[in-house]
Amino acid sequence: MRRLLIPEIGDPEKKTMGKMTLVDDGVIPSFGPGEVLVKVAYNGICGSDGHLLRGNIGNLRPMVLQLIEILGAIGVGHEFSGIIEDVGEKAAALGFQKGDRVTCNYYVPCHSCYWCRTGRENFCTHQDNRSAACAEYIVCDSSQVFKIPDKLSLKCAAMTEPFTIAFNAVEMAKVRLGSRVAVFGGGGIGQMAAQLAKCAGAASVTMFEPIEKKRELALSLGADYAIDSIHEDVAALSAEITDGLGFDSIIEASGASAAAVQALDLLSQDGNIVYFSMYNTEFNMPINLFSQLYQQQKHIHGMQTSAAIWPRAIQAMPRIQIEPLIQKMYTLEEYEQAFKDHMSGEFAKVMFHCNPDIE
Amino acid sequence: MRRLLIPEIGDPEKKTMGKMTLVDDGVIPSFGPGEVLVKVAYNGICGSDGHLLRGNIGNLRPMVLQLIEILGAIGVGHEFSGIIEDVGEKAAALGFQKGDRVTCNYYVPCHSCYWCRTGRENFCTHQDNRSAACAEYIVCDSSQVFKIPDKLSLKCAAMTEPFTIAFNAVEMAKVRLGSRVAVFGGGGIGQMAAQLAKCAGAASVTMFEPIEKKRELALSLGADYAIDSIHEDVAALSAEITDGLGFDSIIEASGASAAAVQALDLLSQDGNIVYFSMYNTEFNMPINLFSQLYQQQKHIHGMQTSAAIWPRAIQAMPRIQIEPLIQKMYTLEEYEQAFKDHMSGEFAKVMFHCNPDIE
Amino acid sequence: MRRLLIPEIGDPEKKTMGKMTLVDDGVIPSFGPGEVLVKVAYNGICGSDGHLLRGNIGNLRPMVLQLIEILGAIGVGHEFSGIIEDVGEKAAALGFQKGDRVTCNYYVPCHSCYWCRTGRENFCTHQDNRSAACAEYIVCDSSQVFKIPDKLSLKCAAMTEPFTIAFNAVEMAKVRLGSRVAVFGGGGIGQMAAQLAKCAGAASVTMFEPIEKKRELALSLGADYAIDSIHEDVAALSAEITDGLGFDSIIEASGASAAAVQALDLLSQDGNIVYFSMYNTEFNMPINLFSQLYQQQKHIHGMQTSAAIWPRAIQAMPRIQIEPLIQKMYTLEEYEQAFKDHMSGEFAKVMFHCNPDIE
Amino acid sequence: MRRLLIPEIGDPEKKTMGKMTLVDDGVIPSFGPGEVLVKVAYNGICGSDGHLLRGNIGNLRPMVLQLIEILGAIGVGHEFSGIIEDVGEKAAALGFQKGDRVTCNYYVPCHSCYWCRTGRENFCTHQDNRSAACAEYIVCDSSQVFKIPDKLSLKCAAMTEPFTIAFNAVEMAKVRLGSRVAVFGGGGIGQMAAQLAKCAGAASVTMFEPIEKKRELALSLGADYAIDSIHEDVAALSAEITDGLGFDSIIEASGASAAAVQALDLLSQDGNIVYFSMYNTEFNMPINLFSQLYQQQKHIHGMQTSAAIWPRAIQAMPRIQIEPLIQKMYTLEEYEQAFKDHMSGEFAKVMFHCNPDIE
Repeated sequence: MRRLLIPEIGDPEKKTMGKMTLVDDGVIPSFGPGEVLVKVAYNGICGSDGHLLRGNIGNLRPMVLQLIEILGAIGVGHEFSGIIEDVGEKAAALGFQKGDRVTCNYYVPCHSCYWCRTGRENFCTHQDNRSAACAEYIVCDSSQVFKIPDKLSLKCAAMTEPFTIAFNAVEMAKVRLGSRVAVFGGGGIGQMAAQLAKCAGAASVTMFEPIEKKRELALSLGADYAIDSIHEDVAALSAEITDGLGFDSIIEASGASAAAVQALDLLSQDGNIVYFSMYNTEFNMPINLFSQLYQQQKHIHGMQTSAAIWPRAIQAMPRIQIEPLIQKMYTLEEYEQAFKDHMSGEFAKVMFHCNPDIE
Repeated sequence: MRRLLIPEIGDPEKKTMGKMTLVDDGVIPSFGPGEVLVKVAYNGICGSDGHLLRGNIGNLRPMVLQLIEILGAIGVGHEFSGIIEDVGEKAAALGFQKGDRVTCNYYVPCHSCYWCRTGRENFCTHQDNRSAACAEYIVCDSSQVFKIPDKLSLKCAAMTEPFTIAFNAVEMAKVRLGSRVAVFGGGGIGQMAAQLAKCAGAASVTMFEPIEKKRELALSLGADYAIDSIHEDVAALSAEITDGLGFDSIIEASGASAAAVQALDLLSQDGNIVYFSMYNTEFNMPINLFSQLYQQQKHIHGMQTSAAIWPRAIQAMPRIQIEPLIQKMYTLEEYEQAFKDHMSGEFAKVMFHCNPDIE
Repeated sequence: MRRLLIPEIGDPEKKTMGKMTLVDDGVIPSFGPGEVLVKVAYNGICGSDGHLLRGNIGNLRPMVLQLIEILGAIGVGHEFSGIIEDVGEKAAALGFQKGDRVTCNYYVPCHSCYWCRTGRENFCTHQDNRSAACAEYIVCDSSQVFKIPDKLSLKCAAMTEPFTIAFNAVEMAKVRLGSRVAVFGGGGIGQMAAQLAKCAGAASVTMFEPIEKKRELALSLGADYAIDSIHEDVAALSAEITDGLGFDSIIEASGASAAAVQALDLLSQDGNIVYFSMYNTEFNMPINLFSQLYQQQKHIHGMQTSAAIWPRAIQAMPRIQIEPLIQKMYTLEEYEQAFKDHMSGEFAKVMFHCNPDIE
Repeated sequence: MRRLLIPEIGDPEKKTMGKMTLVDDGVIPSFGPGEVLVKVAYNGICGSDGHLLRGNIGNLRPMVLQLIEILGAIGVGHEFSGIIEDVGEKAAALGFQKGDRVTCNYYVPCHSCYWCRTGRENFCTHQDNRSAACAEYIVCDSSQVFKIPDKLSLKCAAMTEPFTIAFNAVEMAKVRLGSRVAVFGGGGIGQMAAQLAKCAGAASVTMFEPIEKKRELALSLGADYAIDSIHEDVAALSAEITDGLGFDSIIEASGASAAAVQALDLLSQDGNIVYFSMYNTEFNMPINLFSQLYQQQKHIHGMQTSAAIWPRAIQAMPRIQIEPLIQKMYTLEEYEQAFKDHMSGEFAKVMFHCNPDIE
């Protein structure tokens, strides 16, 4: 089968770029009794895929280099959907069968470590990462695979993984009925977070984003306000929107250092802000303990992907508009153009149609 | 000023009806330094107003009889909005002023009892109940008074008190992103709860209601399903809607004993159900401890009005459609017809326009 | 190896008793790559073991009969500790090794069903139940096995499974700093729940229990009050203890219908009560919706065993006194006497020392 | 009556010290209908009293200077207990009476602002601050006054206000059964927080404190470990205590910048840390967004005093040892020595016995 591989990652210090290649080994992979073979329909490109190619992945770098040394190359792609092609015996007993329309989590938690057994599989110390879905087929453990509702298209279902990030962020930011919410960054996850915040009962949602096209997209998808975070008077406009109280909940989805600082200042007393992007590893955000914490009782949450929320997220997914976020579609052969477009930062989501015969 | 009074409540045992009268004493009431004088715009009739008139108020009856003996009559009306006509000095210092468009909570908590000081003012042991807003004016303590946003009409704002009940119920039922929700009873609060559940992120909302007109209203306001709880196969339809899992959250807003029992059966394992109506005081609902609690881990919540959620509720109020629920409007003089229509059970909400010169 | 089996369960209708037998097949069981072989140190008898033997297990009965038909007999024992004797390759990679002192959860969740993937493995629809630890050896999946801290003896560690029930109940009852707590039933789980409630910050803990010896045990283990729930004036004494407010949190651990009713009456407004015992399947508890739910806003929680709390529970376990609850110890050969003593109801916990060479 | 006043605060820039004086105007203050007159038994000196005297109070300074200009001087003391000497009519109706043993919150919230009405009175925008209890009498609004249980001495009850801070911090840090907890700073609040964390179910409590005497005190009051945060290998010892996982909950009670940074590094993935001290207003703590937030999902909480937890806190207070923290006792006349000893930093709590005839 054909699959997209990275045999060499870039080096940010030497400013060299990594390499990518499409191979076809003509083999459909075999699978174990608890596994299923998924024929991949769609796979979206994640910001982290670009970070990986550029080698710009901070303290994860040694681990990746080691993997490439062992395997020769590492696969690409962890935002995908598809159709079950075949199932192992044990997977069949668990209710999976050929023809099931599915989306998948990209890793298999060990279920035996401290983190797995306290409900936080996102920190699993022995996880088996299966991120190689820019391919025609992928083998998944049954615990990774989720059937999708009829009303969700395979194309939209490929957005499930980033959607769970947006979902987790909205819940960690404690968005609830009547909240005044801000989202920083109008990329794919930011646009989904803004919609989800509204969907979770926000009185108002404000998108902060320097690119006009992305602000317009946010407004068209239901945001109440969209502010140019570089050229407009952010503090004054925020005060007007929130009756001078600041935002109850803020989701920082831009990954930009300047936005990270700006966002914290706009948070209400006793408000909640969530940071979940792969920030510049060198950047240290200054927090004034006296004013931000002692006086204003702000709550600052980190977030590392998502864990046991997938079934609810999939239930909630048809509530928001996913289709307008998928702005470019490519075949696997077009991978160079796809990554070029992804890295332009102009598109909310760029996606591969891995098996164009599946809709 | 004119105001609607009940000098005598009914007796359910003797099957006698209470009396109601509209008096005009020509006096505009005086107020203290921490109080404001509100010119009442609108006041809705609550189910409890009808219970009061009929005397059908269970163990609250002795208290009401005592109040009537002391005061000669008790006032009617606790769902209201209006415009501030005048303010006491201390209320002014707190930011209230003539012309403010407001809605009010109907009681003043003591702020000194155990319940008030643990954030549960709805159980205040020394509350001063000011339920007499079927009148041209009412005096309120500043702690009762809430300014309303421009985009909320005074007419809709008169629904704030019942809206806070729906709001509290939706939160107590733990409705969240992706929840499958059921609401029993398509009266005013039920219709608001159904909309709020959707607004809080429910994957689907199902209205159970025997009256067709109310089911249609629910669907027109955004419910996904509406089921005739008497004539349809409730269990089968619920299983279909919830993939056989039962509802994650149920809000019992009908007050009917049969519905109360039916609702619990449709609740999912580990689901949450809320009961907040003035049920028949004689009715004891049977709960099978082995199946409902030990095996299915259901969570059954009582609810007594609402407490510290008013500011958030008012923020959230413009998110739902209130106007279609206000189906009849009367002047104070038309009180007999108004109560007759209210008691017919046909209308989601019947309301007085207490000062027709205010819109 | 020797192991205790039930080839036939009782029939409550015909009032016949089940049978139990100790077999020795001379075989040490084999295990898979993700499994470990545990040499069992201790195994406690659970109330449900007695229910099983008597056949008194309500709607679970058909399932058990089917299992016996398939397997010839079912094993006994799911409250155990031991030492790892051997490990599969995959289990070794996850950090388990020969000599580890361990306790085990009795079932393997599928990790692929809706319930597992929403963090509620206690409702797993495909769980593999491995309750046969009244034996010299048992094979466990690595996801079931928990290493125990040095300061926890193997004897006490055999109480982990019932301890997690008490732990889950205390948290579900929302016991926190300053709570006034009541526990009904001074058996093993009740005594642990009473201690844990104190350990979780309860201002006071009151044990309701008709048997004097069990009340004395509760007091000696730190309960503040112990009340004879049959012969004392329960309402008056509770009012005295709680300043007339009722208990904030109640854990019903007796399984008795009368206690279940009594407990609910003693709950405070807005209080939380938990029911988790295998109650008489015929019993329906009456709840007055008007007073208990509408007026008093009580929260009634069912509970089905426990899920992702084991690591925390094991951490907390050395905080309470377990040793005094283990009141009788037997070899596997003495099983008849052991079950007789268990069923007398006189002892908090009766236990087997399955391999007397391990301490 | 005699009372301690500050007619002039210090100036940190000019390095001048403020002034303090004891006056006796021979007048017992009058009170309103909703108020009570409290004869003060004990009043503890708070760190913020020292900050006030030195003028070292950051952006609160202009407000204090204005108050002194208006009033001539400001009172001292907000950690107190006493006996009700007389009550207004309305306070009497609420259940207060002469002779009641009480402790008091130092401010009267307005109950009409956004913050009060969302249950966060600690942010009240119109609060009436009554901090002048280093005096023989003080007038309190009934909403400030809390009766204390018989088993709590007036001396210990004077610690209620700082106790509520410790209480709030322990809850905000999400300490629960089985948590591994660290407390930084062995002053009065730190020592209470350490005890409360244990009392709330912590598996272990570790005190980080450079002063040996305070470490010893912590150990004698139940802490499991005490580490010299300056001279010992903090990272290695913490790893040993927490099985390499880091602390689940950390309460930073030292107010020192270095400790604030050190504490965050020792927090577990997904752990909670609380900052509530009056830190140096110039200090900005650097947080690495990539590692601390994105990778490790830490939760950083500010905290501004406490709100609706007083009744529960008073219930919980007898669970910990308060007496050993009150290490020096003075009459009002001895105020100079008292403040000197307070500022030495050697004592957990220094206290005035304002009316030595009351025990």
